[in-house]
Amino acid sequence: MMRTRAAVAMGPGKPLEVMEVNLEGPRKGEVLVEIKATGLCHTDEFTRSGDDPEGIFPAILGHEGAGVVIEVGEGVTSLEVGDHVIPLYTPECRECEYCLNPKTNLCQSIRSTQGAGLLPDGSTRFSMLDGTPIHHYMGCSTFANHTVVPEIALAKIRKDAPFDKVCYIGCGVTTGIGAVINTAKVEIGSTAIVFGLGGIGLNVIQGLRMAGADQIVGVDLNAGKVEMAEKFGMTHFVNPSEIEGDLVAHLVELTGGGADYTFDATGNVSVMRTALEAAHKGWGESIIIGVAPAGAEISTRPFQLVTGRSWRGTAFGGASGRTDVPKIVDWYMDGKIEIDPMITHKLSLDEINDGFHLMHEGKSIRAVVEY
Amino acid sequence: MMRTRAAVAMGPGKPLEVMEVNLEGPRKGEVLVEIKATGLCHTDEFTRSGDDPEGIFPAILGHEGAGVVIEVGEGVTSLEVGDHVIPLYTPECRECEYCLNPKTNLCQSIRSTQGAGLLPDGSTRFSMLDGTPIHHYMGCSTFANHTVVPEIALAKIRKDAPFDKVCYIGCGVTTGIGAVINTAKVEIGSTAIVFGLGGIGLNVIQGLRMAGADQIVGVDLNAGKVEMAEKFGMTHFVNPSEIEGDLVAHLVELTGGGADYTFDATGNVSVMRTALEAAHKGWGESIIIGVAPAGAEISTRPFQLVTGRSWRGTAFGGASGRTDVPKIVDWYMDGKIEIDPMITHKLSLDEINDGFHLMHEGKSIRAVVEY
Ligand SMILES: NC(=O)c1ccc[n+]([C@@H]2O[C@H](COP(=O)([O-])OP(=O)(O)OC[C@H]3O[C@@H](n4cnc5c(N)ncnc54)[C@H](O)[C@@H]3O)[C@@H](O)[C@H]2O)c1
Ligand SMILES: NC(=O)c1ccc[n+]([C@@H]2O[C@H](COP(=O)([O-])OP(=O)(O)OC[C@H]3O[C@@H](n4cnc5c(N)ncnc54)[C@H](O)[C@@H]3O)[C@@H](O)[C@H]2O)c1
Repeated sequence: MMRTRAAVAMGPGKPLEVMEVNLEGPRKGEVLVEIKATGLCHTDEFTRSGDDPEGIFPAILGHEGAGVVIEVGEGVTSLEVGDHVIPLYTPECRECEYCLNPKTNLCQSIRSTQGAGLLPDGSTRFSMLDGTPIHHYMGCSTFANHTVVPEIALAKIRKDAPFDKVCYIGCGVTTGIGAVINTAKVEIGSTAIVFGLGGIGLNVIQGLRMAGADQIVGVDLNAGKVEMAEKFGMTHFVNPSEIEGDLVAHLVELTGGGADYTFDATGNVSVMRTALEAAHKGWGESIIIGVAPAGAEISTRPFQLVTGRSWRGTAFGGASGRTDVPKIVDWYMDGKIEIDPMITHKLSLDEINDGFHLMHEGKSIRAVVEY
Repeated sequence: MMRTRAAVAMGPGKPLEVMEVNLEGPRKGEVLVEIKATGLCHTDEFTRSGDDPEGIFPAILGHEGAGVVIEVGEGVTSLEVGDHVIPLYTPECRECEYCLNPKTNLCQSIRSTQGAGLLPDGSTRFSMLDGTPIHHYMGCSTFANHTVVPEIALAKIRKDAPFDKVCYIGCGVTTGIGAVINTAKVEIGSTAIVFGLGGIGLNVIQGLRMAGADQIVGVDLNAGKVEMAEKFGMTHFVNPSEIEGDLVAHLVELTGGGADYTFDATGNVSVMRTALEAAHKGWGESIIIGVAPAGAEISTRPFQLVTGRSWRGTAFGGASGRTDVPKIVDWYMDGKIEIDPMITHKLSLDEINDGFHLMHEGKSIRAVVEY
């Protein structure tokens, strides 16, 4: 049992409270990781705010981290002390029905306990100093300086990669780039529309550039996003509030009949419909990345699908984390993708609540906490 | 100019009127076909009844026929007098952007005139004896004993195939089998659920059997459909009206987590939602075949897609008619697929309205008019 510092979500809607907490050592198949840096993602805020109907409290949130292995539990064979790692909210056991099916990345081996805020043996490693258990979050809990994570939920990465940048590969980068490469499998010369130019949308854009797309249309209500999006490869910008008449018709015109691929990175269900309908008749695919408010539904006329559009979604960019995340770290280190300009704010753990304010103001792309 | 006998739709909701009509000979790129047999499909009834907001009258309906080439117009090179043919409501020009894209079968080369009830030069070949033009329908108008069809909308088939059976390949057979083979690309060992065991659903089922599916669940409110569906390969039957509790949960249980592929062959938007949600998490694909009432919308929570299901549709079973229809005729002649048991009623042209009554009573799978 050790002590570490963590930002604890005590209840729905409350600011995180930074405090000392107890952390038990790793059990069988588990690994103790010292988190060096963590990004703040909308999903953390979704739970913190109380909007997530499945939120559990108290909990240590955070799922976009990077760090170093401090101790390995019994039976851990793929990692050793000193290894650099990125925790994975979508694990990769390489044994379950899902891992063995090349069509999906949604490893189910520890899903039920992870969803309940527990490690696979059904217990928590975190507790308050008074002994009250604190729940894990998405199997990661990177808003703690030290955390315990199952071996199958850790991607081993090269040691020269900077933690404060590659932590972002733990969610945003992989989600955006993976949506293009793993889920859509965009071909050279394709046309694409990306709705929402935030932390996810920018990564979709750089994924499209890497995949060789010819036309990359960005759509956002906030014109302040244009400069950065162009830097990452956007070729055309559309601000829906400046379009007279039908947005779908405008986009279909701009892309010469609709885009080969469209991506929702807003989480807004009416944008998701626009994205589907702006996909090309006959073969356009629309990929939902955004997470909608609880209970919200998408809809369209089935004729949109019968005439050849398809509607799909992606979680963690379709990436199998232990296999794919180290490759994306390499792409970053080799200069194939950029991350640095997207890390717009650096915070200490004590300032973590400021990071959520920046998010709401639309001022940050990614705020990263460094320990 | 010749005369022929046809069943004419004079106005929305009216019974067809069998009469003598004028038919001009084929112009450039057109072919005069003597129709030997034609099936009656729901789409004909959708237009006849007035439910189709794009219906045009007077028109000669029918799009599921087979016949013999009587005369070819100028420039026709791929067909000659005496050839046996199946008219295609989805043509295959092999030159447009759509034909050259392997992801779609929706040839657009003559779409606008076809949708307006005209031949590609913008005129009709049919007229009343008083000279009033009569519109074509879906580019086929097989409810006439003779019709004029563009060369690119005719599949040349072998001469030993019986017209009164293979006419059904002009729509229902190809739509159902093609949804499995071309659109879903079902793999050996897959699990599948087919909603609606009518003329389309039965063909989906035999497509699944041909593709080597392990489990083929049929869902229909009408238990009278079971015997025929089992004959075509259905392995399990579910009657939603006999299920207590949630139908999706029941189907997910029955298929061990959801089906790899689900197909809507009902045209009911709430069934389409059930079909999507009964597809397997991670990789299940749901294919919409049914045509919904005008204005009806499908909906679901986007989480269904983000967790790996995909929602697609198919028109004419994704088949490129001139290429694929002759192959399906071969499959029938070789005994790989069955058609005969599905042709439940034979009618003369004078009895054509009885065919629509049989359809409404759910008594026929396919009624075929023989000239
Ligand atoms: N599927 C996954 O695996 C996964 C992973 C991480 C995040 N997400 C989700 O992706 C979404 C985007 O995340 P983010 O971090 O990029 O958010 P963000 O707030 O940084 O960016 C969202 C962008 O969308 C724009 N926007 C909002 N409404 C719009 C509208 N109606 N039209 C056009 N633009 C609009 C905003 O101006 C903003 O620029 C969120 O819903 C998040 O929960 C999904
Ligand atoms: N996409 C295409 O290219 C294409 C081509 C031809 C036909 N279609 C469409 O396919 C659909 C099916 O055509 P069909 O000829 O097989 O019709 P059909 O009437 O012969 O069969 C429909 C079946 O669905 C069943 N059904 C109706 N409501 C149901 C419900 N709520 N739950 C379960 N079962 C239900 C009926 O009992 C019937 O057996 C129609 O909508 C038709 O317009 C589409």
